[in-house]
Amino acid sequence: MLKYTLIFMCLSFTPCKAIDIDKLLSSMNYEEKCGQMTQVVFDVVQNSPQPTDFDVNPVNLTKLEYAIKQKHIGSILNTPYYLAQKASTWQKVISSIQDTSLQTRLKIPVIYGLDSIHGANYVQEAVLFPHSISLGGSFNLDLIAKIAHTISLETRAVGIPWNFNPVLDVGRQPLWPRIFETFGEDAYLVGKMGEAYIQGSHGNDLKNRSNIATCLKHYVGYSLPFNGRDRTPAYIPENLLREVFLPPFEKGVLAGSSTVMVNSAEVNGIPGHANYHYLTEILKGELKFSGFVVSDWGDIVQLKYRDKFVESDEEAVRVAVMAGLDMSMARVDDATRRILKVKNDLGLFEDAYPFPEDLAKIGAMESHDLSLEAARESIVLAQNDGTLPLNLNRKILIAGPSGSVLRVLNGGWSYVWQGNVESYFNDFGTQKKTTIFEEVKKIKENTEYSQGANFTHLTNLEETLNKAKSVDIIILTIGEDSYCEIPGNINNLMLSEAQQKLSERLLELGKPIVLVYIGGRPRIITKIAQKSNAVLIGFLPGEKGSQAIAEIIFGKYNPNAKLSVTYPLDANGFSTYDYKPLEVHDTNKVQMLYGFGHGLSYTHFEYLNLKLSKKIVSFEESLTVSVTVKNSGQMDGKESVLLFLNDEYASVTRPVRKLKGFKKSGRAWDI
Amino acid sequence: MLKYTLIFMCLSFTPCKAIDIDKLLSSMNYEEKCGQMTQVVFDVVQNSPQPTDFDVNPVNLTKLEYAIKQKHIGSILNTPYYLAQKASTWQKVISSIQDTSLQTRLKIPVIYGLDSIHGANYVQEAVLFPHSISLGGSFNLDLIAKIAHTISLETRAVGIPWNFNPVLDVGRQPLWPRIFETFGEDAYLVGKMGEAYIQGSHGNDLKNRSNIATCLKHYVGYSLPFNGRDRTPAYIPENLLREVFLPPFEKGVLAGSSTVMVNSAEVNGIPGHANYHYLTEILKGELKFSGFVVSDWGDIVQLKYRDKFVESDEEAVRVAVMAGLDMSMARVDDATRRILKVKNDLGLFEDAYPFPEDLAKIGAMESHDLSLEAARESIVLAQNDGTLPLNLNRKILIAGPSGSVLRVLNGGWSYVWQGNVESYFNDFGTQKKTTIFEEVKKIKENTEYSQGANFTHLTNLEETLNKAKSVDIIILTIGEDSYCEIPGNINNLMLSEAQQKLSERLLELGKPIVLVYIGGRPRIITKIAQKSNAVLIGFLPGEKGSQAIAEIIFGKYNPNAKLSVTYPLDANGFSTYDYKPLEVHDTNKVQMLYGFGHGLSYTHFEYLNLKLSKKIVSFEESLTVSVTVKNSGQMDGKESVLLFLNDEYASVTRPVRKLKGFKKSGRAWDI
Repeated sequence: MLKYTLIFMCLSFTPCKAIDIDKLLSSMNYEEKCGQMTQVVFDVVQNSPQPTDFDVNPVNLTKLEYAIKQKHIGSILNTPYYLAQKASTWQKVISSIQDTSLQTRLKIPVIYGLDSIHGANYVQEAVLFPHSISLGGSFNLDLIAKIAHTISLETRAVGIPWNFNPVLDVGRQPLWPRIFETFGEDAYLVGKMGEAYIQGSHGNDLKNRSNIATCLKHYVGYSLPFNGRDRTPAYIPENLLREVFLPPFEKGVLAGSSTVMVNSAEVNGIPGHANYHYLTEILKGELKFSGFVVSDWGDIVQLKYRDKFVESDEEAVRVAVMAGLDMSMARVDDATRRILKVKNDLGLFEDAYPFPEDLAKIGAMESHDLSLEAARESIVLAQNDGTLPLNLNRKILIAGPSGSVLRVLNGGWSYVWQGNVESYFNDFGTQKKTTIFEEVKKIKENTEYSQGANFTHLTNLEETLNKAKSVDIIILTIGEDSYCEIPGNINNLMLSEAQQKLSERLLELGKPIVLVYIGGRPRIITKIAQKSNAVLIGFLPGEKGSQAIAEIIFGKYNPNAKLSVTYPLDANGFSTYDYKPLEVHDTNKVQMLYGFGHGLSYTHFEYLNLKLSKKIVSFEESLTVSVTVKNSGQMDGKESVLLFLNDEYASVTRPVRKLKGFKKSGRAWDI
Repeated sequence: MLKYTLIFMCLSFTPCKAIDIDKLLSSMNYEEKCGQMTQVVFDVVQNSPQPTDFDVNPVNLTKLEYAIKQKHIGSILNTPYYLAQKASTWQKVISSIQDTSLQTRLKIPVIYGLDSIHGANYVQEAVLFPHSISLGGSFNLDLIAKIAHTISLETRAVGIPWNFNPVLDVGRQPLWPRIFETFGEDAYLVGKMGEAYIQGSHGNDLKNRSNIATCLKHYVGYSLPFNGRDRTPAYIPENLLREVFLPPFEKGVLAGSSTVMVNSAEVNGIPGHANYHYLTEILKGELKFSGFVVSDWGDIVQLKYRDKFVESDEEAVRVAVMAGLDMSMARVDDATRRILKVKNDLGLFEDAYPFPEDLAKIGAMESHDLSLEAARESIVLAQNDGTLPLNLNRKILIAGPSGSVLRVLNGGWSYVWQGNVESYFNDFGTQKKTTIFEEVKKIKENTEYSQGANFTHLTNLEETLNKAKSVDIIILTIGEDSYCEIPGNINNLMLSEAQQKLSERLLELGKPIVLVYIGGRPRIITKIAQKSNAVLIGFLPGEKGSQAIAEIIFGKYNPNAKLSVTYPLDANGFSTYDYKPLEVHDTNKVQMLYGFGHGLSYTHFEYLNLKLSKKIVSFEESLTVSVTVKNSGQMDGKESVLLFLNDEYASVTRPVRKLKGFKKSGRAWDI
């Protein structure tokens, strides 16, 4: 099939460079094959020191020629200097690399891979979208597909055809510092979102200059570290794996993802990179994955240095490749074939260069608008006693650390890995980014801001309290500073003491309080929330999150997001929405502040005429569930209708309910 | 073998009632067999209302005759009115029951079972020992065997031949409200302690009136609830089960325990009471367990009501019995045979009555002394800047809630299930029990006490601060109130806010502080401990815990306990001492306040001449490790020498180290 397709494609190209993979493979020597199976970080080909001018091409040609001509390197990853580059500079980088690859004996193009996680976040002019945890809460598959398409378009425009996304881990451990990279705690939701993301990224043809190869990660079982810290042991029996953690990857493979990235940590004492059962038996066997498997950052040698799993570097490589990773000795032909196939699918043999005219695609107004639409559908109204929407006549003070910075709206994976350099959010891109304070002021000009505390320490507390005394209402903006992966590890899920103190003192004033939580995971806010008049939750809603929040506060937009993860009540004793009856036995009380799927609106939706197509369903028969949803309130709005099922009894204990379908605002999806 | 032994035994008994089990079984009808397989709670045969006089026999003869004669009930459990009874009243209860059983067609004695967890805690005159978490810290197997023997003797003296102990769960989840019932977090330590406990309980002959049948519980995997709450789901892959949770039960079966109690919760979605793989394949198959398996409290019907595992009560019984529980339809002969065998092993067919002269065995002075010895070897000196031992010239204030109550030294399973009724500790038994304050005053008469806070609220804080200003040193006694099982569930491991506040205010005074923590699990005390001059930890050290603490404070006893569980640093991100290298990768810092095995002394022990018997050890060869330990300090003391091993590399990732042997103060154990 493949070869015929290629011949067909070639008819329209000049010169025709499409290839016969087996023929190419048979002409390669051992070093060339091993080179194809090797991916290096950009540092290896990088000029130093870092130029002060972002227009300078950071490639060191001598190093590049050594890597590609001498070592036959087949892939490069990451952003130069670990920092977002100008789109035009990226095009220079990719052109230098492909120039060099065309000077080799076999002219095999390099495949460049990048983490475009919530936007082409390593391209300065690109749009930053809400992170996946927020997109999950939109329950809007169209939106996900459009965002994925925009990310693809902006990444491929600089010449990069491969994105290390989507994350299909299911986020069921609130402490885990990567939960914000997941689509939430439910396997069905994550799977559907992942499928939409892949469709939006791949389109119909990977050779199209708007499309990009995806990478499903982190296969598999990465997201349930027992102690909550990143890259620590998980214990996942096979039935739990197959019920919760595997299904999204199955959907991703069926949706045609070209690549899969391996879990960096370990499950049941077996490091991800050494797990033959997961990588070969399940992924390539049962799921029939035909793309290639890539290691996570430097993880193969960790089998020796970190995991004490093998005695030597060589043995580490052997074990990983034999487990199913596509680099090796014995499996070299199969691995190289898989890699060449993806390069071929992406059209790299035909043309691996970026197109200067594609630069105009990056940071387009409609892409920024899409980010705004996504932010609006990401903000959860968790509590409201009628205080929201705010009346424009009331005098407002914004307090707390989240209200006056840009970085916390975007979190990790923003221009730099940790997303923690505030100045880049001002400096990069052509469209000015705004804080919550700035957006609220646009609507209500004489709004004041006083911090009171930063993320870790009290600052101008007394001044803030004094200012608060003279206003009608306080918008209290709290949360977490930016982080990513291991640096985001915490030993206590509680909100920082300084922010607790600030909140407590402000609450003592007895003024109405609108609490706005901004963070990558649900830090404990129970005591504060219970005394607040309204609560908005923004899990890293992206560059337009501030505008969406301001619009919702004043009723210019009617909130419709629902939580993609359960918000815990306290620092321990977590439950997910799909808890077992066992967990509430004797107490009959679930330990959560707000459950998965919770989210209020300014209007009221009535659910009428619930109907099942049959009373009795036999095995493998399908059932249609229909319900009429009527907006019986005063304001236009969208509603996500969630369908949950449970079993009356079963031979493995069942959760109290499980999401089996969802539909938003009249748009139909297969339920 | 068994029958010959019995015949031999019979020579010395008149009348000889030893039986041929198979012959008896063949003469039983179906209802009689099912009756043997049924255990009822004492409520079923109990008079109501509760008499005000503890001397009144609480048995209702009509109910008893119905249960035993009509329903052929073979076993009864628990204490009347859920409250400790006088020893003489217990004897009346057992006599009534066995009178009735002798009036049945087959005269099969009832087997009465009771939770004698840290002493015969449902016998008013009995001695209360430290709980297992503290006994684990003694690392003293002789001591465990002696305590088990004393508990057996005091329980059997009232006519009860069966104890629902030892707990062989491995306590690796600090939030779990039953961690205090375990011997700690290490499988080897738990197994060795369990073995010693069973040897001390069984002696050489179960028919001996000082010995008692044990019950290994809670088989298996109960102690690792993912969210830390009691009786909630655990996820334990088979290799983790076999490495950590199964080995202590294997040791217990080899040591000859007569019975095993089933895990009340679920592992990997399979309720303990329905787990054929664990109960039949592993326990009765691989481990060749020949005793009988008993359900935990009312758990069979939970397969229907709680776990939605089956559709009906009948199906619940069928599933549980077919999984391996010794009650049933199809398996009825095997189950009844197992039960009759244990009754026979215990000599119940020969004489199932209590002996009035045995009452004198209960609460003997040497048993109280043993409890003191155990308490001394249970208190951990975790920190000391030289402040301890205290100089007698210094003026002392004791503050905090733990210093003036008896119940917190004993915790759950003390007179009542929750161990929370203070008055019983004053009223029961002949020897007066004492608080920490009372014991400190015995040594340093003019010591003052002021509470400042109870376990949940501030009380006389200002008064306490004022008193503290006029003393030289503060003994700050904090911790947890008594609890057991589900009522002990918490959602935050932090010490209560009131106690944090009290501690903070006292620390602000700048006086030397000796922190004394008393509790069933390690609540977070990091900030307080780091500012204290010395820290003592008493995990429910029993009725003599107060005396031991006072002795250690003034240097009358040299502390030698070491922690049997790791003391966590904060409310999340726990690690055990045997963490994987993975857990500290990139940070190189373990997240713990004090590790397993940590414990200081007032003297100094030098470790000299470490020698291995061989440089290379082949598979199945043994290695002798020897070391000379020299007390080079100024004070007599005991030392637990712990031997840890690690693997250089292995095909399942290994912990950084693993306990493989221990020795205390010259007493040799097989290492």
